[in-house]
Amino acid sequence: MKNIFGSALQICLFGESHGAAIGVVMDGLAPGIPLDLEGIRRQLDRRRAKGNISTARRETDAFQIVSGFFEGYTTGTPLCLLIPNQDQHSKDYEKTRYLPRPSHADYTAQAKYLGYQDYRGGGHFSGRITAPLVAAGAICQQILREKGIRLGTHIARCGGVDDEPLPQEEQALQKALEKLDQEEFPALSLDRWAKMVRAIQRAHEKGDSVGGILETAVVGMPAGVGEPFFDSVESTLSHLLFSVPAVKGVEFGLGFGFADQLGSQANDPFRYENGRAITATNHNGGINGGITNGMPLVVRTVVKPTPSIYLEQETVDLREQKNTTLQIQGRHDPAILHRARAVVDAVAAIGLVDLFAQRYGTLWMRKNP
Amino acid sequence: MKNIFGSALQICLFGESHGAAIGVVMDGLAPGIPLDLEGIRRQLDRRRAKGNISTARRETDAFQIVSGFFEGYTTGTPLCLLIPNQDQHSKDYEKTRYLPRPSHADYTAQAKYLGYQDYRGGGHFSGRITAPLVAAGAICQQILREKGIRLGTHIARCGGVDDEPLPQEEQALQKALEKLDQEEFPALSLDRWAKMVRAIQRAHEKGDSVGGILETAVVGMPAGVGEPFFDSVESTLSHLLFSVPAVKGVEFGLGFGFADQLGSQANDPFRYENGRAITATNHNGGINGGITNGMPLVVRTVVKPTPSIYLEQETVDLREQKNTTLQIQGRHDPAILHRARAVVDAVAAIGLVDLFAQRYGTLWMRKNP
Amino acid sequence: MKNIFGSALQICLFGESHGAAIGVVMDGLAPGIPLDLEGIRRQLDRRRAKGNISTARRETDAFQIVSGFFEGYTTGTPLCLLIPNQDQHSKDYEKTRYLPRPSHADYTAQAKYLGYQDYRGGGHFSGRITAPLVAAGAICQQILREKGIRLGTHIARCGGVDDEPLPQEEQALQKALEKLDQEEFPALSLDRWAKMVRAIQRAHEKGDSVGGILETAVVGMPAGVGEPFFDSVESTLSHLLFSVPAVKGVEFGLGFGFADQLGSQANDPFRYENGRAITATNHNGGINGGITNGMPLVVRTVVKPTPSIYLEQETVDLREQKNTTLQIQGRHDPAILHRARAVVDAVAAIGLVDLFAQRYGTLWMRKNP
Amino acid sequence: MKNIFGSALQICLFGESHGAAIGVVMDGLAPGIPLDLEGIRRQLDRRRAKGNISTARRETDAFQIVSGFFEGYTTGTPLCLLIPNQDQHSKDYEKTRYLPRPSHADYTAQAKYLGYQDYRGGGHFSGRITAPLVAAGAICQQILREKGIRLGTHIARCGGVDDEPLPQEEQALQKALEKLDQEEFPALSLDRWAKMVRAIQRAHEKGDSVGGILETAVVGMPAGVGEPFFDSVESTLSHLLFSVPAVKGVEFGLGFGFADQLGSQANDPFRYENGRAITATNHNGGINGGITNGMPLVVRTVVKPTPSIYLEQETVDLREQKNTTLQIQGRHDPAILHRARAVVDAVAAIGLVDLFAQRYGTLWMRKNP
Repeated sequence: MKNIFGSALQICLFGESHGAAIGVVMDGLAPGIPLDLEGIRRQLDRRRAKGNISTARRETDAFQIVSGFFEGYTTGTPLCLLIPNQDQHSKDYEKTRYLPRPSHADYTAQAKYLGYQDYRGGGHFSGRITAPLVAAGAICQQILREKGIRLGTHIARCGGVDDEPLPQEEQALQKALEKLDQEEFPALSLDRWAKMVRAIQRAHEKGDSVGGILETAVVGMPAGVGEPFFDSVESTLSHLLFSVPAVKGVEFGLGFGFADQLGSQANDPFRYENGRAITATNHNGGINGGITNGMPLVVRTVVKPTPSIYLEQETVDLREQKNTTLQIQGRHDPAILHRARAVVDAVAAIGLVDLFAQRYGTLWMRKNP
Repeated sequence: MKNIFGSALQICLFGESHGAAIGVVMDGLAPGIPLDLEGIRRQLDRRRAKGNISTARRETDAFQIVSGFFEGYTTGTPLCLLIPNQDQHSKDYEKTRYLPRPSHADYTAQAKYLGYQDYRGGGHFSGRITAPLVAAGAICQQILREKGIRLGTHIARCGGVDDEPLPQEEQALQKALEKLDQEEFPALSLDRWAKMVRAIQRAHEKGDSVGGILETAVVGMPAGVGEPFFDSVESTLSHLLFSVPAVKGVEFGLGFGFADQLGSQANDPFRYENGRAITATNHNGGINGGITNGMPLVVRTVVKPTPSIYLEQETVDLREQKNTTLQIQGRHDPAILHRARAVVDAVAAIGLVDLFAQRYGTLWMRKNP
Repeated sequence: MKNIFGSALQICLFGESHGAAIGVVMDGLAPGIPLDLEGIRRQLDRRRAKGNISTARRETDAFQIVSGFFEGYTTGTPLCLLIPNQDQHSKDYEKTRYLPRPSHADYTAQAKYLGYQDYRGGGHFSGRITAPLVAAGAICQQILREKGIRLGTHIARCGGVDDEPLPQEEQALQKALEKLDQEEFPALSLDRWAKMVRAIQRAHEKGDSVGGILETAVVGMPAGVGEPFFDSVESTLSHLLFSVPAVKGVEFGLGFGFADQLGSQANDPFRYENGRAITATNHNGGINGGITNGMPLVVRTVVKPTPSIYLEQETVDLREQKNTTLQIQGRHDPAILHRARAVVDAVAAIGLVDLFAQRYGTLWMRKNP
Repeated sequence: MKNIFGSALQICLFGESHGAAIGVVMDGLAPGIPLDLEGIRRQLDRRRAKGNISTARRETDAFQIVSGFFEGYTTGTPLCLLIPNQDQHSKDYEKTRYLPRPSHADYTAQAKYLGYQDYRGGGHFSGRITAPLVAAGAICQQILREKGIRLGTHIARCGGVDDEPLPQEEQALQKALEKLDQEEFPALSLDRWAKMVRAIQRAHEKGDSVGGILETAVVGMPAGVGEPFFDSVESTLSHLLFSVPAVKGVEFGLGFGFADQLGSQANDPFRYENGRAITATNHNGGINGGITNGMPLVVRTVVKPTPSIYLEQETVDLREQKNTTLQIQGRHDPAILHRARAVVDAVAAIGLVDLFAQRYGTLWMRKNP
């Protein structure tokens, strides 16, 4: 299951950065979902390069749904969404075809695909391929929203700057997620975001890049979703999150913070509140034994600094079989966190819809009457 | 794919802690592998409760291979390995059937399985179910070893104590893994391990528990294994690691350490050494774009403190629908890291064998002539 | 997906005829199904060798459910059902280890498993391995029955003798299926069955064997189950039916009878009857475009004559690499149709439950309140 | 796995007959296959409507490969092939939107997709959707051909006319398949084909349609490919064949002809010839126990008469909920056998490549050096 994910809802991804088009096929959507095309555009817009902290490559992400969508509704048959590629500077990559960029996939693609890979712009490894993933995720977010499940992601940390923390209390958290959905900046605090932007710009001026941590929360999940072993909520979401380029770590709840805790500190006691069993704390991020317990899901994802920096780097010449140096040309993001958060939202939504559909069936995806 | 994992090599897990038996079916093994039964016993032994820092429940993990194994070799047909359960104190769990233990799966199992779950000893959520997983992993470790691929896991941190770090240099790392394989203690430094044991015992005396971080390395991987998106090495391994009870975070290479790095610090430059392209540093943990680059794989897994502590905890009574308290009886581990490392080794091996078999075919698993 | 079938409900089969045990794991059953163990025994009994038209090997098929079943109900976790092997005459197979029996899997197993297969009694290819499949199917038949869906199989033709045809009219067909379920003989007409038995005995006396055709009907299916392309009802059922040893053909409705028809003869016109859309004829066997239309499903399966005959046959000696002859010893069925019909019932039920669960979710399997 | 097929090589199909485009994604192709685009066009051409025994709808099947193909070779990443739809007379279908055509998928699509299906031209159920399947199959046929494996399909019977039988002897069979590949008529005998055409035309003049039987052979298969149970060669091929619209029966070797045979007549004795073990007869169609034995594969598929006939038919009005009649307009094939044979070739190739790749790995698909 290489470029296909899922059990009940299957996502098939394809495309190269400088190929004719990139796209996704979604197989297993319920019929009769009135697709919010504007919502898809909105998520694609969040993913896109904008302003002076992103790559100068201008893409419009105009998409076309060529199947599975008729008279405003999903048909229930496979839905194929295509995004033609634009504004490709293929020449940027020819000179460096045999010079693998450090920490990129150039070298490993060569090893795996034996030289036949489309090397331009990172080919199938480019962050561009996350665009159709975001479109598919937007559809899943719509499905979840209609079930009262809301999710959102903020930049928890970037360039040494911490955002405000997510509220613990569920109503406040709900409000924070709504704000993240409405506002254009990808943080809880505009002030902290401004500081992050300055840190990104400083790195950019030096020809360098930064990474950071994205934090995602989901509210409204019922208890009982997920599987004990191989399709636990953590397994499902991490499988998808680690598919996103540049992700190198995923943690749930306290995550690595559990390492220095005692059980008495880490455990989440149960109590009834308004007739519903909740946990007094939520160190487990809403998941016990791989299954949701009804508390908000909390997951953090680390995104490494964008490998494409403008400083000179050491590399090898695969054709001449010798050591050399490389100075990357072209147009690259000094940071991708503010764009990657749309991708993280998307894959989280995809994973959750698949888990729901396994339990409740394909028809669950339809709006409650 | 709930309790079944894999594409080329499929692992199907079953069993409850207090049921008749637990086990695993491995479908897709190559024929003609001379199984090292002693090696399986050895890994099961590493997983088992021993000494005074583990649960008092004594299991022998005697296993029986009932199919797929004939005259000393795998047949290539599905191999079913069974482990009968022993030394079960089922009475320990009856009184607390409706009192979900905080941070355990009791509550979520109730939500998912509507009250029909086997609640005794954690049922299908018990760490016990990792025993057949360890057996399957032992077979995979044998397959990898015959291809010159060696892996091992040490406790990087526990109870506030850090182990020595893994060597960076490949030969030294190889030696360290061999030592981890031969010695009984699960750390690089016996002295640090002793300190960890004391920390565990101190927690145990207080009726509490501790967690920690496991660090795994794999040497000998060729470049080119893994898939760009949904079956990247990180996705495959994290999917398996998060299936292990108590795991709440997984990171590769620098992992969350990338958050505060610049690209110029984080990138791994390429160079030729002895005719082979390597990276000068290995911040990416041997994986670029989801695919191995030939450098050692490095992954860290956080294990939360064992939820079962002897201190009184707040919980709810699901039958009476009211708040109450709970004091866990029975025999529980104050820490499971030293046992969990065998599970981490196992699932890492399973995931890697599956990725290899997808690329090279089932017959790849057979010993080189 | 070699020995594992299914999407929502997954069936994992294992075992060799002369190994310790054979069995099945069912992953994806809903929790809270009160298993009818007697029903499982009954189906196993139908499959078993009995009387003088079957093999003399006596098996009791005593089974044990070692997981996924607690206090009388399915838990929803993976259910493993084991059947120990008994009454094995392993010596019967030793002399002929390198003499592949014509039309058996001996030669192909050698080619696939490179000599490592368990050759005794047909190993993993033995009809014996259908026993756990029948047990799994019995559970699925119970699930279907509680939804008002009933199925049954009769021997349509054997040894040149035709059974009475299945009634076309739905109520009469329902009665016929109930009768097939209650009676011990596997035909609609006791008289025709007696003739079939005589034909089988005549072949047996000559050391030969016969084949025939099984016909299965399913009533009570709602319209809308199945998928247009790769998981059509025909694809799903034929995939399972062709997994049964000795099956060499599957047809739906008129099947190969369509070859000489005109469209005007073959088409099934629609009409309303009692407020429900039905078809005036049912040449399509209840399936249009791969999806059920509410009419009874009708499928026919041809079972080739049992390859194990007592007459001398030409074969090769794989060790000496020369032509030779073989006279099979041991205890073999002159016909297996009356046993195979339980297997056909079983796999049909498994396939249908999987298709239902994909559409309606795992929880669909639970009894209506 | 609804519209996705395969394990090692996965095929994802999408599209509606009157939608923007139809297509397929192939995930798991090896890198470095020099695609024979002319070969793809050729197979699409064989599938297309031509002459006066086919629908008058003119399609050019111009296709575009938008990913996974670079500088003349497969990259190894997912390959998406698109075929825009043309010459659509959507108006033809509006008047009859609520009048399900007998034996078509209109009614069942309504039941499954709750009225949201794209009803025009049969939507996702149209035979048109087999075009991308044929393109994918052409790529698989190229892969097989480079391994010395050749396949082909002739119309064995149509309109009461039998073609000449396939030769039994392997060299003669090889020649017959080559001829089928080169010639434009889909039979072994031009004279018999002429008779079939006349039968088709006679039906057409009466506004009716005919069906028939396609027979496929594959030579050059090594022994050992396939799985004993759920992915037997018969299961894999029938799963794909029954996905093709209008297919209602599949048989291997003697198929339903086995029903009246004795074991002594049916069995295929083994013998050595030129150092290779062959069978004296090939009643089993090259498959024993689900696995190839090296003899030619022989499979027959029955295609029912095209449901779209011009005679008046009885049906229901789903909106008015009453009985009515229907006279189909538009442009329909009186027979599709001569077109369907390209689809049968295609899916047979897809299934075989998937089975090979499971055994030998993705890289097996590459040309022998």
